[in-house]
Amino acid sequence: MLQTRSGKRTGKAALRIAVDMAEEGLITRDEAVLRIDPAALDQFLHPTLDPKADRKVIAKGLPASPGAAGGKAVFDADTAEKWAAAGEKVILVRTETSPEDIHGMHAAQGIVTARGGMTSHAAVVARGMGRPCVSGAGMLAIDHKARRMRVGGHVIEEGEIITIDGASGEVMLGAVPTVQPELVGDFGTLMAWADSVRRLRVRANAETPLDCRTAREFGAEGIGLCRTEHMFFDSERIMNVRRMIVAEDEAGRRAALADLLPAQRGDFAEIFRIMAGLPVTIRLLDPPLHEFLPQAEQDIAEVAAAAGVTIDMLRRRISELHEFNPMLGHRGCRLGITYPEIYEMQARAIFEAALEVAEAPIPEVMVPLVATRAELAIIRALIERTAEAVFAEKGRRVDYQVGTMIELPRAALAAGAIAQEAEFFSFGTNDLTQTALGVSRDDAGRFLTQYVEKGIFPRDPFVSIDVEGVGELISIAAERGRAARPGLKLGICGEHGGDPASIAFCEAAGLDYVSCSPYRVPVARLAAAQAALRNAA
Amino acid sequence: MLQTRSGKRTGKAALRIAVDMAEEGLITRDEAVLRIDPAALDQFLHPTLDPKADRKVIAKGLPASPGAAGGKAVFDADTAEKWAAAGEKVILVRTETSPEDIHGMHAAQGIVTARGGMTSHAAVVARGMGRPCVSGAGMLAIDHKARRMRVGGHVIEEGEIITIDGASGEVMLGAVPTVQPELVGDFGTLMAWADSVRRLRVRANAETPLDCRTAREFGAEGIGLCRTEHMFFDSERIMNVRRMIVAEDEAGRRAALADLLPAQRGDFAEIFRIMAGLPVTIRLLDPPLHEFLPQAEQDIAEVAAAAGVTIDMLRRRISELHEFNPMLGHRGCRLGITYPEIYEMQARAIFEAALEVAEAPIPEVMVPLVATRAELAIIRALIERTAEAVFAEKGRRVDYQVGTMIELPRAALAAGAIAQEAEFFSFGTNDLTQTALGVSRDDAGRFLTQYVEKGIFPRDPFVSIDVEGVGELISIAAERGRAARPGLKLGICGEHGGDPASIAFCEAAGLDYVSCSPYRVPVARLAAAQAALRNAA
Repeated sequence: MLQTRSGKRTGKAALRIAVDMAEEGLITRDEAVLRIDPAALDQFLHPTLDPKADRKVIAKGLPASPGAAGGKAVFDADTAEKWAAAGEKVILVRTETSPEDIHGMHAAQGIVTARGGMTSHAAVVARGMGRPCVSGAGMLAIDHKARRMRVGGHVIEEGEIITIDGASGEVMLGAVPTVQPELVGDFGTLMAWADSVRRLRVRANAETPLDCRTAREFGAEGIGLCRTEHMFFDSERIMNVRRMIVAEDEAGRRAALADLLPAQRGDFAEIFRIMAGLPVTIRLLDPPLHEFLPQAEQDIAEVAAAAGVTIDMLRRRISELHEFNPMLGHRGCRLGITYPEIYEMQARAIFEAALEVAEAPIPEVMVPLVATRAELAIIRALIERTAEAVFAEKGRRVDYQVGTMIELPRAALAAGAIAQEAEFFSFGTNDLTQTALGVSRDDAGRFLTQYVEKGIFPRDPFVSIDVEGVGELISIAAERGRAARPGLKLGICGEHGGDPASIAFCEAAGLDYVSCSPYRVPVARLAAAQAALRNAA
Repeated sequence: MLQTRSGKRTGKAALRIAVDMAEEGLITRDEAVLRIDPAALDQFLHPTLDPKADRKVIAKGLPASPGAAGGKAVFDADTAEKWAAAGEKVILVRTETSPEDIHGMHAAQGIVTARGGMTSHAAVVARGMGRPCVSGAGMLAIDHKARRMRVGGHVIEEGEIITIDGASGEVMLGAVPTVQPELVGDFGTLMAWADSVRRLRVRANAETPLDCRTAREFGAEGIGLCRTEHMFFDSERIMNVRRMIVAEDEAGRRAALADLLPAQRGDFAEIFRIMAGLPVTIRLLDPPLHEFLPQAEQDIAEVAAAAGVTIDMLRRRISELHEFNPMLGHRGCRLGITYPEIYEMQARAIFEAALEVAEAPIPEVMVPLVATRAELAIIRALIERTAEAVFAEKGRRVDYQVGTMIELPRAALAAGAIAQEAEFFSFGTNDLTQTALGVSRDDAGRFLTQYVEKGIFPRDPFVSIDVEGVGELISIAAERGRAARPGLKLGICGEHGGDPASIAFCEAAGLDYVSCSPYRVPVARLAAAQAALRNAA
C-alpha cells in the first residue's frame, strides 16, 4: 500500500498545491485526496511551535498527543486546577496519570509523563481532550513531594516555565512561541472531496459536551464511544460513586445510585442535544471499581468521613477490591452481572434522557468486555426490562439498540453466538490488542520500543493494528457475526480508529464505521477516503 | 459425554468391584476402565480424614489441592520453616501466597489461604507439591501481625492445632485423625489396563528432584514443564538473581548470572539423572523480574545490603519494574529479547548438564509467551549459538529440540509461521485462558463463582478447558502448526492437563501428550484411557 509522503514540504503548502492542481484540472480530485498524508493534517488542528523560534530541548518522550503548549510546570492535578483557575497557564508533569488526575489534565495546557506509552492513560485522555501530551519521558526524575524534577543537569522547580511539543515528543526549557492553527479554505475543500468518496462513516469517542461539540465541528457523524465512567469522576459525583462501592449491600448501593441518576441523565441529555440527529453509542460502566477509590493515605480518611464509613471499613474495601491484573479483572459486563443495579441505573438514565430531549438520537447501548453470549443475554434482558419500565412510566417509547464491544479473543471467536443478542459490534481494539498479544499497554514501554527496533512488530501495535493477529480476530468476528445476523452494524472504537493504516484495514474488512478522538476525526475522514480509493483501484 | 459416577460408593469399593468383575469376565477390561471416575483416584494418592472421626468445621474454602493434614497454625513462611525444622507439624495460613512463601509451603503439612481461586499461586504450587490446600476461605480474618485469625466466634492463635481437608475445602478446629493411602493391588491392575488403551502420553509438571521422583513413581512418561524460575527462589540463589536484576548494565548482569550458572546446571543434571530415558521440557525464565525483588520495607534494607546497592537504588529499581498488569507485562521471551544474557546462561546450563549426565534425555528447550515468529527466531538463534559454543568447548554434542509455549491468542493464530521455528508446541492453557477470556486467574474469585452459578461458564474455565474459546484456539494452532510442519509435537502443560474433561478435549484435538502436576498423573492416565475408548466408540 502506497502512502504519499509530503517530503519536506509543509502540510499547508502540500495542501495548497494539491487543491490548486485539482482545480486547474492537472490532477483529479481523487488524486488530490490521495496526495495528502493524513498525519500532516494535525498541524491544521493544533498549535505548532514557531519554526523560527529558539528551543532548548531538555527531554524527549513519545509524541503522545499533538500540539505545542507552554506554561508553568506543576506536579499534581489539584495545583494545576488551582493555578489555572487563577489565570495561569500550566503544564501538568506526572510520573504517570490516573483517572484522579482528569481535572488537572483538563485545566492544563499540556501534559508530560515520565512513564507510559502511546496508549497510556495520559496519552489516551490527552488525545481525547485535544491536549498536547508527551508521555514516557523516562529521563525526567520527578519528585512529586519536593515539587521539582531533575533532567540532565537541570532542576526544574514548580512554577518554572516549560514548553512541550506533543507532535515530536520534545520537552523544552522556557517559553517557546507557538503558531495557532487556521482551518483555511483549502482544508475545507479537500475534506469535502474526501467525504464525497469515502464509504466508512467516521464517529468520535467523546463524553464531555466540549468533546462532543469539537467532534461535530470536525465532522464526526456520531459518537462511537461515550465512556460513562469519565462522568463518575466529577468531584460532586465521585462521592456517590464511592458510597455505592463501600455500601454493605444492594440496598446501600441502590441508594447511592439513585443519587447518581439525575447527574447521569443530565449528561446523556446534553450529549443527545449536541448530537441531535446522529447516533450515540453509550458504553456502560467498564473500569474495575477500585479505580474510583482513593489510594493515598491522607485521602482515605477524608473519603471515609465523606462516605460515612470508618477508615478501617474503607481500607478493608480497598484491600478486598485490590487486583493483581486489573485489566483482566472484575470490570466491564462482569460488574453488570454481579451488581446489576449499576447497569440498571445507567440504562434508566439513558432512556429517561432520550425521552427528555426533543430530537434525541437513537441511543446505542453498548455492553463492554463480553466474552460469551450468555453474558450479553443477561445484560440485554436487564436493559430491555429497564427500558420498558421507563417507557411505561413516561407513557412514550424511543427506539434504541443493544450491542457489544468485541474486545476479547474469545468474543471474536464466539461472534456468531454473540450476534444473536447484539444489533451492533464495536471492536475495542485497545483491549483486543492487549489480550490477543498478551501485552499490557501501560507496561509495554519497557520492551515495545526494542520490539519495534528489532522488527518484531513493524509498528507499535497499539498505534497501528496488528493485522496478522488482532486483524484476523476482527475478520473472524465480522464474518461470523454477519453470517448470524445479516446487516449487523460493525465499527471500531479503539485508538486505532484514528490511525490511517488501521483505517485502511477497516475498509478492507468491510466495517461500517471507525470512531476516534475528536481531534483525529479529520485525519480519519481523509484516511477513509484514501482507503476507499485504493480499495477500488 | 458420559462420566461414570461412583455415586455413594467409595472409590476403593468401586475399584475393587470393577477389577473383580473384569477378572470374572462379567465386564471387559475396557468397561472396567470406563467405570472408575478419575477424580476418585485422589483418595488413593493422598491421606484422607478418618470417616469415623468427629470434626468441628470452622471455615470452608475451595478444595484447591487434595489430601487431609493437621498441624499447628502458623502465619508466615519463615515460622513454618523454623517450626518444621524443629520437628513440628504446621499448617501455613496466609491471606494469599507468593513465590516468597515457597519454603514455608514445602515445610508445611498443608496450606490455607483466605484469598485466591483454584488456580491461585497457593493452589497451583500446593498441587504440584502434593500438599493439601484450601484456598479462598474468605471468612478467615487473618491478622498476620498479631499472628492470629478470627473466624465465626473463634480466635485461633499461632500454635493452635487445625486440620484441613483439601478435597472438601474444609478447615477444622483441632486434630482430626487421617487415614494414609495405600497403592493397593486393584489400583495397579486398573492403571495397567488404562495404560494399554490410551493414546495420549502423560507427562508431569515438575522441577524439584522430589517432584520428578514422585512423577516417575506415578507413571509420568517425561517432564512436560520444568519451570526454571522456581529454582531461582532457593535462599542461596535468590541473592544472585537479585544482583542480576539490580545490576546497572549487561556486564553486571553477566557477573551475577555466572554465579547462578553452576546451580542451574546442577539442577538440570539432577533432573536429567532422575528422568533418564524420558523427555524433559525445560521452560526458560518466565515471570517478570519484579517477582524476585522484596516488597516488605524491612526486607528492602537487607536485600540492598546483600546485593551491594544502596536502599535508594533498590527502591528505584523496584519502582521501575513495577507493573500494572504483570500477567501482560515484561515477562516470558520478552525477557530473553531485552536481556539475552539470561536465556544464554540458562541454555548453557541445560547443554552443560546434558553433557555431564551419562544417560541424559533429549532436552526440549521451551520458550515462553511467544506471540510472533520473529521472537522465536531470535531466541532460537541464541539457543543454537549457545549450544554450539558448549559443544565446541566440551568436544561432544547432544541432540536437543527447541519449541514454544502457545499461550497467547495471537500465537495460536500465527501458529503456521511460528511452527517454522518450533519443533514442538506446548499449550499453556492457564495463560491462554487468561488472555482469550480476559480473566486474571488471581482476580477471578470475585465473579467466577457467580459466573458458574448463572451458567455463563459450565465449569470454572481454569479447571476445565473452555472448549468454545480456548479450545478453538488450540484446534486452530494444532491444524496450522501441523500443516506448516508435519509431525510437530503437540502437548498441553496448563493445569488442564490433569482435568479429565480437558484431557478428553486433548484426545479429540489429536494432541500427543498432556502434562500435569505429579499427583495428577494417575488421574490423567486413566482419563486419557477413557477418552481414547470413548473416542473410538
